[in-house]
This record gives sequence, C-alpha cells and structure tokens, in this order.
Amino acid sequence: MPKNIVVIGAVALGPKAACRFKRLEPDSKVVMVDKDEIISYGGCGIPYFISGDVSDPSQLQETSFHMLRDKAFFQEAKDIEVLTKTEALKIDRQEKHVLVKNLITQEESTLPYDKLVLATGSRPRLLDTPGIDLDGVFAVSNMNSAVVIKERISSGQVDKALIIGGGFIGLEMAEALTDMWGIETTVVEITDQLLPGLISRNLAQIVKHHMEEKEVSFLLEHRVERLEGNGKVERVITADKSIETDLVIVAVGAEANSDLARAAGLDISPRGAIVVNSKMQTSDPDIYAGGDCVEVTNVISGKPGYYPLGSMANRQGRIIGTNLAGGKAEFPGAVGSFVVKIFDLSVAAAGLSIDVARREGFDAISCLVIQFDRAHFYPEKDLLTLELVVEKSTGRVLGIQGVGPMGEGTVGRINAVASILKYKPTAEDIGNLELAYSPPFSAAMDIVNALGNTAENILAGKNRVVDVDEFDELWKQRESGDVVFLDCRGWGNAEPFVNKYPQHWKSLPQDELRARMGEVPRDKKLVLICNTGVRSYEAQVTLDEMGIKDTCNLQGGVACLKKWGLDI
Amino acid sequence: MPKNIVVIGAVALGPKAACRFKRLEPDSKVVMVDKDEIISYGGCGIPYFISGDVSDPSQLQETSFHMLRDKAFFQEAKDIEVLTKTEALKIDRQEKHVLVKNLITQEESTLPYDKLVLATGSRPRLLDTPGIDLDGVFAVSNMNSAVVIKERISSGQVDKALIIGGGFIGLEMAEALTDMWGIETTVVEITDQLLPGLISRNLAQIVKHHMEEKEVSFLLEHRVERLEGNGKVERVITADKSIETDLVIVAVGAEANSDLARAAGLDISPRGAIVVNSKMQTSDPDIYAGGDCVEVTNVISGKPGYYPLGSMANRQGRIIGTNLAGGKAEFPGAVGSFVVKIFDLSVAAAGLSIDVARREGFDAISCLVIQFDRAHFYPEKDLLTLELVVEKSTGRVLGIQGVGPMGEGTVGRINAVASILKYKPTAEDIGNLELAYSPPFSAAMDIVNALGNTAENILAGKNRVVDVDEFDELWKQRESGDVVFLDCRGWGNAEPFVNKYPQHWKSLPQDELRARMGEVPRDKKLVLICNTGVRSYEAQVTLDEMGIKDTCNLQGGVACLKKWGLDI
Repeated sequence: MPKNIVVIGAVALGPKAACRFKRLEPDSKVVMVDKDEIISYGGCGIPYFISGDVSDPSQLQETSFHMLRDKAFFQEAKDIEVLTKTEALKIDRQEKHVLVKNLITQEESTLPYDKLVLATGSRPRLLDTPGIDLDGVFAVSNMNSAVVIKERISSGQVDKALIIGGGFIGLEMAEALTDMWGIETTVVEITDQLLPGLISRNLAQIVKHHMEEKEVSFLLEHRVERLEGNGKVERVITADKSIETDLVIVAVGAEANSDLARAAGLDISPRGAIVVNSKMQTSDPDIYAGGDCVEVTNVISGKPGYYPLGSMANRQGRIIGTNLAGGKAEFPGAVGSFVVKIFDLSVAAAGLSIDVARREGFDAISCLVIQFDRAHFYPEKDLLTLELVVEKSTGRVLGIQGVGPMGEGTVGRINAVASILKYKPTAEDIGNLELAYSPPFSAAMDIVNALGNTAENILAGKNRVVDVDEFDELWKQRESGDVVFLDCRGWGNAEPFVNKYPQHWKSLPQDELRARMGEVPRDKKLVLICNTGVRSYEAQVTLDEMGIKDTCNLQGGVACLKKWGLDI
Repeated sequence: MPKNIVVIGAVALGPKAACRFKRLEPDSKVVMVDKDEIISYGGCGIPYFISGDVSDPSQLQETSFHMLRDKAFFQEAKDIEVLTKTEALKIDRQEKHVLVKNLITQEESTLPYDKLVLATGSRPRLLDTPGIDLDGVFAVSNMNSAVVIKERISSGQVDKALIIGGGFIGLEMAEALTDMWGIETTVVEITDQLLPGLISRNLAQIVKHHMEEKEVSFLLEHRVERLEGNGKVERVITADKSIETDLVIVAVGAEANSDLARAAGLDISPRGAIVVNSKMQTSDPDIYAGGDCVEVTNVISGKPGYYPLGSMANRQGRIIGTNLAGGKAEFPGAVGSFVVKIFDLSVAAAGLSIDVARREGFDAISCLVIQFDRAHFYPEKDLLTLELVVEKSTGRVLGIQGVGPMGEGTVGRINAVASILKYKPTAEDIGNLELAYSPPFSAAMDIVNALGNTAENILAGKNRVVDVDEFDELWKQRESGDVVFLDCRGWGNAEPFVNKYPQHWKSLPQDELRARMGEVPRDKKLVLICNTGVRSYEAQVTLDEMGIKDTCNLQGGVACLKKWGLDI
C-alpha cells in the first residue's frame, strides 16, 4: 500500500533518503520540507567557494552533469514534492503529522505521515564571548553566510582575518583566505595543538609548520576573551594579545539540530544528538533520523560518536530510504575517517588518535614512520608520515593518521587500513596488508607495511623510540652531559652537526658501528639518529647485542625534525 | 644457540629474510649466495630504467638514502656474508648442506645450514617460436638485458619495436619505448584483450583505446609464428601479417625457478612453483621459500595463485626471517592486487576479474560505474571507472578493477576494497564502506559506495544493464527495427544523435519522462542511455512502474562509449 513519507530537511541525507525510497516505491508519496530556499547543496564545498575554486554558489547545488537540484528538479526528475521556506514546528507522534509554517505567507498547516525522516542537520557551535554579535563575525554554516563572506572579501573589505578554532574547517578556511586572497590570517586555538582529538601533537606540529611557511599565524592555548569594535568587529582580545581584524570566522565545531526531536519526546544523547539504532530509527520506530543530527557508534571504542560529514549523511540516507520501503539495511557504525587538504599537504586519519585512545581507556602506544610514497628510485616521489595507534597488550590497531603531499597517496593508505578496523586487525596484519605495488604508486615494502612492522618491533621492545617532542626535551637538557646524540648516517650528513655541537653530537655511521664499537660512549644515554629512523633502529639492535642498552631511537629521524621545523 | 642460515638468491626476498633474521638473532650467521654480480635490485624498476625515468642502473640497487646494496653493504651494515657469482648446484637435505660453485674460479664447495632459504625467483617464460634466438630479441628479466636494450635504444638502433604479450610488463614496456623514445611500437597479444585474466574486456578496451591514442599499435588474437632476420631480428610473422622491427621484447609471463628445489625432492606444484605452507616452509620444514619461486593461496578462490611481485617477496621475506628465529609468523594469502601506470592512466585491481571468477566456478555478475574521482564541484577532477565482481547468490564481492587518471585515486580505492576481501564482504558492505571524504579527494557519495549500491540494484533485478560490448551488438542490429535507443539526457546532449540517427535514437529526458510517457515506444526493446548510467537507471525504474519492462541500461553511459573509442 502506498505510504506517505515526510522528510524534514532537504540537504544531503533528506534528498538521498527520499530519492532512494521513491526508486523502491514509486507509488508512494514523499514531501520534503526545508526552512531555506537553497536546498540539496554540498555544504562541504563552502571553503572552496570562499577560496574561489568554486566560482558560483549554484555549482554546489548541481548534479555531476550540471542539473540544478532545486524544487522543480525534485518534482520532475524524482517525483518528490519539496516545500521550501517551510519550517517544521512540531511533530505530533500520536496523530502522526507534522505542523509546518510557510515562512513567506506565515500560514500553518499539517503534513500527515506514515513514516517521518528527520534530516535536520547541525548548526555551528556558538560562543558566548562578549562582542560575538558584532558585524563581521561569521560561522561557515550555510550558503547565505558564505555568500556574504565572499562578497566582503572580493570587494576588498578584508585585509586581516581571524579564525577561532583549529579544527579542519578552521584550517580549510585559513587556507582559503590566505592562499587565494592574500589575507593576513591568524588562527586562535584553545588547546595546545591543531586538529585536536584528530591527530597526534607530533603530526599537528608538521601541519602547523607547513601553514606557518604559508604565512598563516597561530595562537595555540589561547582563548578569545572578547571581540571589540564600533558596530563592526575591529579586534580580538585574548589574555595577553589584541589582534586587529576585519573578519572573524568561528569554527569551533557543530551541534546537532535536535530541538524538534527533543520536543517530540524522542531519545536525545547527552551530547544533544538524536539517538538512533543501526537501522537509523529513533526511539519512535516510525521516525528515522540521520546525518548531522544523530550520533552513531564508533566501532573502535564501541561508544557513541558524532560525525557531521556529507559522506556519512549520504550513506545513512540510502539506508533510511531502503528501510522506509520495508528493507532491512543497517548502518555499520563509523571509524571516523577524515581527510583534509592543507595547502600542499593532505592530512587523513581513521580510528583513534593516541590521545583519544588513552582518554578512552586504552593502554596504547603510537608508532611513526616517514618514508617515500613511491619506489625510492622513481623520480616523482615525496616523503609521507604515518602514525599507527596500537593497544599494547593485544597489538590491536586502534587508529591510523597521516600527513603527506597533496594527492590521494595519503588518504588511499588511510582508507586501506580504515576499511579493516572493524575486523580488529593487529599490527602484524598491517605489516602483511596487501597493497597493490608498482614503482609510480608505492614502494615494494610500502610505508603501510613498514608501519605495521615497526609497531611490532616497538611492542616487542626491540625498537625503543622517542618522538620529536621527547627529543626536543632531551636536546634542551644536553648541557647536563648525560646524553649523547649519536648520528648513524654517513659522515657527510653528520658533519655539520658534529662541527656545530662537538660536545653533544657524535658521528658513527651504522655500517661502521661493529668495527668502531670502542668509540661508543658507554656511560651516557644515547639518542640514535638517522634520516628516518631505520638505520638508527639497526644501530640500536647492534648496540643491544653489545650490551649497550640505554639507547633511544628518534622516530622519523632528521626528516621528522625538519618537518617539525625544529631548527638545531 | 647461534644458527647457520644459508639463503639462495640475493634479490628482494633473500635479503629481506636475511636482514630480518639477523636483527632478531645477531649472533647467528647468514650466508647469501647469488649467481649474479648485481644483487638486491628493484627488478620492477626496469621499465623505468629503459624509459629513462631512472637514469642509472645503480639507482635500482640503492637504499632510499643512496647507499648501494652491494656485497660490502650487506657485510658491514647487516653482518651478512654474500657470495656473488656463486651458483647453488645441489641441496643435500640429509647432510644439510648446499653444494655451490664459484663461477669465476669454477671451484666447488659446500655450505652447511641449519635452515635454508630458497629465494631463487623466476625467469621469463620462453617461447619456442622459430627465430626466437635471433639477436635483438630480449626478455625484460634482469639488469643485464635491460642495460643492453637501453644501449641499443639510446644509440639510435631502434626505430620500430614489437612486444609479444599484452600483460602489464608488456604494456609498461610499450609505454617506455613510445613515450620517451618515440619508437613505433606494436604489441602482439594472443588473447582477445589486453591484461587478460586481470581485468574485464570492457576495461581492457579503455586501456587499448588510450594506448592507441598514444600511437601504440595492437594485434589482438595474433600468435607470432616466427621471427626472421639475417642474424639480427628484422621482422615478425603472424598468420596474416609481417611486421618490420628492430627489437622484440618477449613479455609472456614468468615461471618459478624451482629446479633446485625439485632436484632436492621438495614438493612442486603443477604450475612448477615451490609449494609452501602459511609459515613459508617447503615440504622440508628446515627449508623455507618465498617470492617469485613459490605459489601462495588466493584467499578469494581458496586455490593456489602465482604472484611474482616485489611487494609479495618483501612481506614474505620478513615472515621467513621471523620464523627462522623461532617466530610464528604466517602469510595470510593473497588477493592478487596490482596497479600499473599506462601513459596518463592508472589501472588497478584486486581479487578476481569477471572472466576469472566464472572460470573458477562462481556464478558472478559484474557491475561498472563511471563517476568523478572528486566532488563534482571541485575544479580538478576526472572520471574514474570501477568494476565490481559479485557472486549472484550471496552478493559476495569477488573482485574489483579500475581504470582512472594517473595518481593514487584509483589504486587507493582498489586497496580499500582489497583490504577487506578476505573478510568476504558483500555488495552492501561496499555500499557502506567508510572512505575519508573531502571535496579535493573524493565525493560525498564516493564511486566506491556508488559501485556497491549499483551492484545491489543489479542483484535485486532493479537495474538491468548492458555493457558497451553488448550495446555495440545491439547497435549493429539497429536496422532490424526491434530496438530503440532512448537518450535520457537533456535535449542538448541528445540532439546530435537524434539528427544523425532519427530512426533509432530518441530523446526523452529523464525529468520529462513522466509527463511524456505517451511518446515511449511500447513494442520495442529500449536501450536507455545517459552520460554515466545514473539517470538512465532512474528512467528504467519509472518505465518499470509504467509497465514498460523490456529495457536495458547502458552501464557507464556515453562516458563509457567515449572511453572505449566507440564512434557512433
């Protein structure tokens, strides 16, 4: 029997669920309502619209082949009725209808439903900082604000910009403003690293250093205390700084739009997101929800996670469409994969970062490898940095994060590991992962395999490592005389350091180590260094064999120091 | 107790096993023997050496940081003794020693072992074609022949070349000769497609068309009957052609070097490869083998497979190294992943192609999707073609193949699916696969997810498809009057076809279909066409609803016709 379906929200999940359902049940009726006039747009394209990569906002609303996904499109191509400029005010679960208001005529009416879909999305998290209401302060939340921001920029009103929040939307916006418009941009982040909760402090420092080279400024561990200006924002005040600015973008995360669901008595999580089961049903089995307004299970931690991403919304939308038609599709949970372009870098991750893993109660270690992305003899290649987070007792892989050159080399590797995370792979499984090999694409022993192998060696206690930040601490303590930095590379590489720091930096190439064992200082802690951490590991094994065990190996080697911007 | 390890073969697997073992048991002794002088080189780099991308053969023998992996390197950096120019003649399993001959002094001696590793590699499969011994006929088997080929090319002795074999080495060589040296190159392949057994005929045609645009010539379904010339090869003769040539490269596959193992009474497979268990042990538990001389289990078919790839050898080498030291590492089998650069294309695959799946006894279908590799609004993007092979009765994914632009976008997606193949995913799992999303890298509904969804729709009988080759047959029969080609795109796209073929090609845009249903011919088979197969699927659903069921949807649409080079 034909059904009446009402969908609230016409961006990403709503249209996907509606269209899938209509293909399965063409006889049924679907009405989709949205407060806005512009519907079904790719909100994740906003930074590219602002940068100018995407010139016209309508491009974000088109299909791959340039059909505008507007009201008429859904009616004619999809046989779905869309009511734009229409706000859903109230869900009556007893009567099974939705009270809606036409925002143009102010008329109210009710839409009866057999099944209801909530695709109410998210809103940018707000700050209650004094001055946040000044003109010139924006969130990157929808096309309307994006259009205003771009107008101001392109009409030359913005010389300086300040972004509150160092998450990926904040960094994408920093690139858009700096790279294309030459705006002097500062990012203020409350924690001590960029992309907090997403990647380690080590990888975050690589990102920060790269962005600094691109002339973005940062204030970490700074909270914006107030915004000042005469009607329009003119400066931003932190505990110890006052920064002049013409534009402020607030990018401190998103919150689920769950008010309608809450008012209807549906289960809402402590985070404020709608609770759904694996079929994407809310606590009322006739009401489905998905996309930015729900939370789903993180398959690593087993706990609820919040992933406001267009890709999640699309996949969940199809599942809802199938289930509306009586299907039994299930959403398998998420590992929280993401990727972001940051100038010439790509940053990608899946699963838990080391800090999050520990916060979630895992006794975890992380392992970092730097290696060429392609065969080392292939002319076009670049260094890629990957980090694997592993549970100590079981060797189970909890997450993987990476920073590499632009292109799909980093994200492709992250995806290959992300795909299997739900099957609880161990470091050994990653060491054996079969990746397609050919010199223009990868190395015979690909960095992913090297990463798994290195993690195994660390877990076995054979490779005892320090990170760059630990190295930095040891380096600062060098005058104590308790530490010697042993350069395991050839003399040519070591020479400048030995000349600069003759008391602290010693050269002993790994391939000469056995022959020159007598030269190794035996009463000091040795920090072993090579270009990427491979030869220094080899040296560590040899030193162990000789009974010299107070050694540590710099993960990622000198390559990592350089990427950090650590100038020694 | 320290052991004596002998390793026969010093390329890829041998060195990897030896070095891993030495790091675990530094006290033990390892001797590695090789017939050749040049050892531990990346043989997979040979096409790039010949093309000129790699200028010097020694680059293929270096570590990432330019250390030459020669005899002295292994002695000093790894504490491994290497005997080059030394041939292993015989294994005495009773006495546990290997009889070897120094090829310079002709002296014979024995090397005692506790454990032995066979890393004897492969040799190019030979042809017994008359004239195959003429000068100018080469296999791309080792550095020595590569150096000779490059000398001839770079000294201007080669204007025309002929390659026997359309597998990936043959195609890599065709690119190397054409692209960098402008040599007029013909590839002769005995089957009816390029990359037989690796990808479908449909994808292979895309590759062929691209290579033809790059001026490589092909003779499919041709067998070389003889080679002629006066001392040096001058022409190649097939049943109906005589092709002038200065150089012939034979690339018809590889065969395991298993003679030594066979003579020692070890188990050898019908294919002639050494049989090993998951610990990489031969039928003699004190003898390990791996790399190009063994076969391993294909985890899709459960049958033995042969994968002579440097990446396999490296991973297996580490497993052998671990097990030599008393470890319990296991090789998990293979899904046969590969990737190859072909001019501006990348071609990648994992698991079974549709033909191989059927040959292995699976009742399988294949599903093809063409879609942009990145968000459709992102300025830099390109079309990517993926094919999924699925078992009909279970929906189990048996393989995935793809052709896309150069870069890691294609191989990254293949790897993401390849990783989970051993867990027996279904099409639904692929539809739900979580890939990291951001507009510069992928689409919100990524092609991988679209592929899984499309396969589900095909299995459900909702999407009834034809491939380009089936389309081609229907097109050839168009004068019969039984078929109408219904263009579901906008009039602008359809117009030129309608004008050219008014009897056969009708325009009915998908979004006008409901309103213009009366214009649909009801007594003919309808072939539904759009740009990529998405809107024509939508049209098929609508026609089904109206009771018009004799329809088929062209997979990949007009985009696929263009990639095929089908000129209609």
